[in-house]
Amino acid sequence: MKNEVGKVIPEKYSAHYGLFKGELANINEYQESSRLIHPVKPRDRKLLGSLQEAIIKTGLKDGMTISFHHHFREGDYVMNMVLAEIAEMGIKNLSIAPSSIANVHEPLIEHIKNGVVTSITSSGLRDKVGAAISAGIMENPVVIRSHGGRARAIATDDIHIDVAFLGAPSSDEYGNVNGTVGKATCGSLGYAMIDAKYADQVVVITDSLMPYPNTPISIPQTDVDFVVEVESIGDPSGISKGATRFTKNPKELLIAEYAAKMITHSPYYKQGFSFQTGTGGASLAVTRFLRDAMEKDEITASFALGGITNAMVELLEDGLVEKIIDVQDFDHLSAISLGSNPNHYEIDANMYASPLSKGSVINQLDTAILSALEIDTQFNVNVITGSDGVIRGASGGHSDTSAACKMSLVIAPLVRGRIPTIVKEVNTVVTPGTSVDIVVTEVGVAINPNRQDLIEHFKQLEVPQYTIEELQAKAYGIVGNPDPIQYGEKVVAVIEYRDGSVIDVVHNV
Amino acid sequence: MKNEVGKVIPEKYSAHYGLFKGELANINEYQESSRLIHPVKPRDRKLLGSLQEAIIKTGLKDGMTISFHHHFREGDYVMNMVLAEIAEMGIKNLSIAPSSIANVHEPLIEHIKNGVVTSITSSGLRDKVGAAISAGIMENPVVIRSHGGRARAIATDDIHIDVAFLGAPSSDEYGNVNGTVGKATCGSLGYAMIDAKYADQVVVITDSLMPYPNTPISIPQTDVDFVVEVESIGDPSGISKGATRFTKNPKELLIAEYAAKMITHSPYYKQGFSFQTGTGGASLAVTRFLRDAMEKDEITASFALGGITNAMVELLEDGLVEKIIDVQDFDHLSAISLGSNPNHYEIDANMYASPLSKGSVINQLDTAILSALEIDTQFNVNVITGSDGVIRGASGGHSDTSAACKMSLVIAPLVRGRIPTIVKEVNTVVTPGTSVDIVVTEVGVAINPNRQDLIEHFKQLEVPQYTIEELQAKAYGIVGNPDPIQYGEKVVAVIEYRDGSVIDVVHNV
Repeated sequence: MKNEVGKVIPEKYSAHYGLFKGELANINEYQESSRLIHPVKPRDRKLLGSLQEAIIKTGLKDGMTISFHHHFREGDYVMNMVLAEIAEMGIKNLSIAPSSIANVHEPLIEHIKNGVVTSITSSGLRDKVGAAISAGIMENPVVIRSHGGRARAIATDDIHIDVAFLGAPSSDEYGNVNGTVGKATCGSLGYAMIDAKYADQVVVITDSLMPYPNTPISIPQTDVDFVVEVESIGDPSGISKGATRFTKNPKELLIAEYAAKMITHSPYYKQGFSFQTGTGGASLAVTRFLRDAMEKDEITASFALGGITNAMVELLEDGLVEKIIDVQDFDHLSAISLGSNPNHYEIDANMYASPLSKGSVINQLDTAILSALEIDTQFNVNVITGSDGVIRGASGGHSDTSAACKMSLVIAPLVRGRIPTIVKEVNTVVTPGTSVDIVVTEVGVAINPNRQDLIEHFKQLEVPQYTIEELQAKAYGIVGNPDPIQYGEKVVAVIEYRDGSVIDVVHNV
Repeated sequence: MKNEVGKVIPEKYSAHYGLFKGELANINEYQESSRLIHPVKPRDRKLLGSLQEAIIKTGLKDGMTISFHHHFREGDYVMNMVLAEIAEMGIKNLSIAPSSIANVHEPLIEHIKNGVVTSITSSGLRDKVGAAISAGIMENPVVIRSHGGRARAIATDDIHIDVAFLGAPSSDEYGNVNGTVGKATCGSLGYAMIDAKYADQVVVITDSLMPYPNTPISIPQTDVDFVVEVESIGDPSGISKGATRFTKNPKELLIAEYAAKMITHSPYYKQGFSFQTGTGGASLAVTRFLRDAMEKDEITASFALGGITNAMVELLEDGLVEKIIDVQDFDHLSAISLGSNPNHYEIDANMYASPLSKGSVINQLDTAILSALEIDTQFNVNVITGSDGVIRGASGGHSDTSAACKMSLVIAPLVRGRIPTIVKEVNTVVTPGTSVDIVVTEVGVAINPNRQDLIEHFKQLEVPQYTIEELQAKAYGIVGNPDPIQYGEKVVAVIEYRDGSVIDVVHNV
């Protein structure tokens, strides 16, 4: 069975998830998931003596689903801590539903091998965990979900979280949590907020216990069952690891310059426009070029969205951006800003990007800069598997934002080392080509033929413009035709589109 | 069938709601109510041309349940406006579930007579509407619910709101709402937030349309289906009507002085204590006396709770109260404070007071000052029917707060005119005597014999102390025995306890 992007999906998965049939083909009314609530009476206490006690009190059993958030990124101690305790207690066969998985979660491999964890859904997988999954250590494929898709899956009960274990930079004894106060401040708790709202039971794990009531409140006491105090929930330096460097790479600067030019010459660039940029080197450079243009043109943005870095916070502070709408922070200064600037506003993942919400913020977004591991001549984008076919990336908000915003730009170098980035067919489709409006490389741009309006609009613009086939040919011209990957027979990951259908599967290598 | 407070409940109602069996007898785990969500796609718009268009788009039909909030109090235009439009459209047999009903809602009487509204749940009823209901104009009794009980009923699906019509002091086109910006600012939208979270469909009605994204966000776009702009949603002067006067009445001042003395000499009065006071003259005076004591003793409160007035805001600004936790504001200055002071924090009614939440703020409260129309020798309190048996009050947070806090004080004059306040048996029980710790009158106090610890503690305190029977005898000594009310056979109101059981019924007069 081929889906809308021409990918063959094994019957087993197409029957379960449905075939991807287009961006808006599977948006229907639904009954929202409901949680089993254990009321807390006037003299009950939530603060427990240990993580083990909390696990016991939740009644966690073999076969249940537990969740975590990834706001501490490479600095997270919570998932390893909880899984070690659970393994110690002899609980097996768990499904885990973290919002994402980082390098730091390498101990997960042992928990998989020992049967503690038998099912995973995540935005992505990195390094050794990705390699192990791609090697086929799990019986069940990992389900890769976008940030909006995960929020959708929780709201529709595709993921039903029995117990959420949520690291909290600060909490009071009754479970009022925020991410802007404490030892390991991560800023927005946008992904965790969803788990807290829908999970049957929520255990807050904190290393900074505050007097009641701890405000501001990102996760309220009404979403929390138990609170546990531990020595340390995360390494603050790991939170911003690898995400926020400024580039001096001339290729990245050229990409950024072209991307910024496309935005500032687009029909959407006017007083009160809105944008989302990413956290890679070129993305951050786009922000810098945008700043220059906005200052020159005396244009301010109504809001900026997304994973937030200090570069964005500076735009807010300098009055170039009126508001920041924040689902995740990538550095300490952004977390501080969230805690102190009323125009820097925290939202949850449902409001950020769910395709089944009553309207997410990305629906209001003019333009977004997104990255890619590969882009093909159908404009399909791969952000999950490397050129060797191994899972090493993350779906993130890619398919969400590109589908919803008015003009999406996917930026990437034409080649990386000896590997072409613009290819005839991506290894794995995460975002369908219909969502991608402009591909930006260091040699020039390609506008999606679906967007004749943009092709017409940009006709006179002094940025080299090609067809996507021309860019692909240039890439192959430099590094030669890529060798096909030799995949095995086993499906190691199912790539869900944001609406819950299967857009692709990944086989073992 | 007699319930725990000795009230005879007709079989019809005891079977449906269950008999009241004690404060915590009916607190059990439950599956939370779920809403039917109509997803909003990227290019969909929510702003409609008229209220009628919104009503049509929601598919509102005969027999459905609609809701409103009462944050505009006597200044509300929204409920009358919506019901007039609905009546005009010929829709009948609606259940309405406003968080409360004010004098200004007198047109409701016609909608009842015409069959537009056939079922009502509310915190209370005032003046002409109360009198009409007490006269028996409805076939179905009104269900009186406390603020926490209403949040509970919505969370358990006892009330399932098909369409919530929510007046918004400000909103953007996508439905991000707050109560601190606009022409008719009411401050906290704590009651409305619950409707928005659980209703299948939500129509936001605003007279101040703001640029996107409107922040701070009390009700998010993800809880809103449609937005309608109208000329005016409310009269700002009506919001604070009748609630915030400072008293010069010597009786009220004496009551306030005794109440403040009980608090400041209680075991709970220490650094970081917490309290809730009301908005009546004596309550406000308690706040003033408390301030004097706190300044003298150099004690500050960790938080103050409840319906908020400027008297409380001044305590916050002067550093005597660290945080205000706010479900409702009673004057303009409180609304302004909520919008500008980060230590003035908005919460919803579920977090304020629901007995079935994962822990409400009242559970953390040390002491509360509550008012009463009548108190009987079992310490039962009536806040709903007058001495003539006519419904004219509101359940409010009375039974919630008194049950949950560590020490509840019910303040009232011994007599009002020729009517005793301390009686042998209240006309209508709203709050059971087990929840009331101290009754405070201008002649002295009575401590509930259940609280031997407090009787012991206060032994040496220089406040006249009596038994409740002595206070009742004093009251009757002044004004004579009250004449019994001649009720009819028809049940015109069911008084739900906060847990959903029936604590009393009201008959027609």
